[in-house]
Amino acid sequence: MKYKLYYWPSIQGRGEFIRLALEDAGADYADVAREPGGMAAMTRILGNRSSKRAPFAPPFLAAGGRVIAQTPAILWFLGARLGLAPNDEAGRLWVHQLQLTMADWLVEVHDVHHPIGSGLHYEAQKRESKRRAADFLAVRLPKYLRYFDAVLGSSRGGFLLGRSVSYADLSLFQLVAGLRYAFPRAMARLERRHPRLTALHGRVAARPGLAVYLASERRIPFNQQGIFRHYPELDTLRNNSKKT
Amino acid sequence: MKYKLYYWPSIQGRGEFIRLALEDAGADYADVAREPGGMAAMTRILGNRSSKRAPFAPPFLAAGGRVIAQTPAILWFLGARLGLAPNDEAGRLWVHQLQLTMADWLVEVHDVHHPIGSGLHYEAQKRESKRRAADFLAVRLPKYLRYFDAVLGSSRGGFLLGRSVSYADLSLFQLVAGLRYAFPRAMARLERRHPRLTALHGRVAARPGLAVYLASERRIPFNQQGIFRHYPELDTLRNNSKKT
Repeated sequence: MKYKLYYWPSIQGRGEFIRLALEDAGADYADVAREPGGMAAMTRILGNRSSKRAPFAPPFLAAGGRVIAQTPAILWFLGARLGLAPNDEAGRLWVHQLQLTMADWLVEVHDVHHPIGSGLHYEAQKRESKRRAADFLAVRLPKYLRYFDAVLGSSRGGFLLGRSVSYADLSLFQLVAGLRYAFPRAMARLERRHPRLTALHGRVAARPGLAVYLASERRIPFNQQGIFRHYPELDTLRNNSKKT
Repeated sequence: MKYKLYYWPSIQGRGEFIRLALEDAGADYADVAREPGGMAAMTRILGNRSSKRAPFAPPFLAAGGRVIAQTPAILWFLGARLGLAPNDEAGRLWVHQLQLTMADWLVEVHDVHHPIGSGLHYEAQKRESKRRAADFLAVRLPKYLRYFDAVLGSSRGGFLLGRSVSYADLSLFQLVAGLRYAFPRAMARLERRHPRLTALHGRVAARPGLAVYLASERRIPFNQQGIFRHYPELDTLRNNSKKT
């Protein structure tokens, strides 16, 4: 099956979680908005509010006459088809549950630099961002890292489910990679407490399909328009929250 | 099957989306943390990080030896069992996609009064809340209302899927109800543009199982600890964003 991914062409963003699954599996897909005329096609679909089952926002995936939006729903759909999810319902729901927790985490990462409004520039909410960043790095980020580190610990096989990889592992790789870009100083310190996350990142990056992808031009570099942004003034983790 | 719901006992919160589905279907369930000793039981499960498939946070549902967390995942699980979702995969994913969009919306509602940190008091982030509320009411809330109104328009039957109700309709009812509590002035104006949402709210509230539930003591009243909070100073919608 040929898949068509619709997502903003200049950022990794939420679309990257889909790209990683498609690339890892070697799936045949088009990244539509990065092709000539693709942005217009995407805008047309988004603007057509009278169509049935219209997406609220990118990313969305067209496959076999269907259009599916919302990253976790797309990954539910692809997971079964690309061999990146278990076959049993309990296993599929567990992977999905992990993905949903990462989706919550991702919103919090984004809102560090956009605590007031996603349509306003960072510079217009910089003071608020500094306050939010302090809370995120001291409280929320450690909580998420601890949780996923513990899941990796109890699964024992190096991936979230054990020995077999799932799309949730690819997403966890992406979160670690993005957080390293956005908060290099804080992550250097926090990762020391969670070597299982560091190992997971390396294990996923070394997968054949992904190693090729990550070195290719198809992998959009992290930049200051995406979800993960590096503002040095936000990368502060006070010593009193250090527990190493 | 007897279901056990674990959620904070004094707020509607995310747990309410699960309660509504269970109540509408007349399911046999326990709201564990509201029973004697229940909070301790919930805390024990959350604290046990060495258990396999541990939840990150409430709500979570125990059913037939399994524990499922994340509201949309719980509703995916319950939808099929309670007759509140279509049987075909495409239909189930569409309902789920709508639920995920409502989950995003709900985070934004919450963050209006907690733009800096969920662990800080509102009073410690009141100034930032005012800025965020202005953006939410002028930009984000109208966008979500427009979207769901359009889905109801294209489905034609009065519910999101058409004539048959799904758990997503119950959730949409809850969003309208909560937003009316939190932002009565803004919603009075915005709902006028979206009579389909008003009608959906009334249609869901009148369902036999829910009418009984909503009038009962099991329905926790909206209050100032939940996701939907009424702070009059945040309920401002400027005239220049009025498009009636």
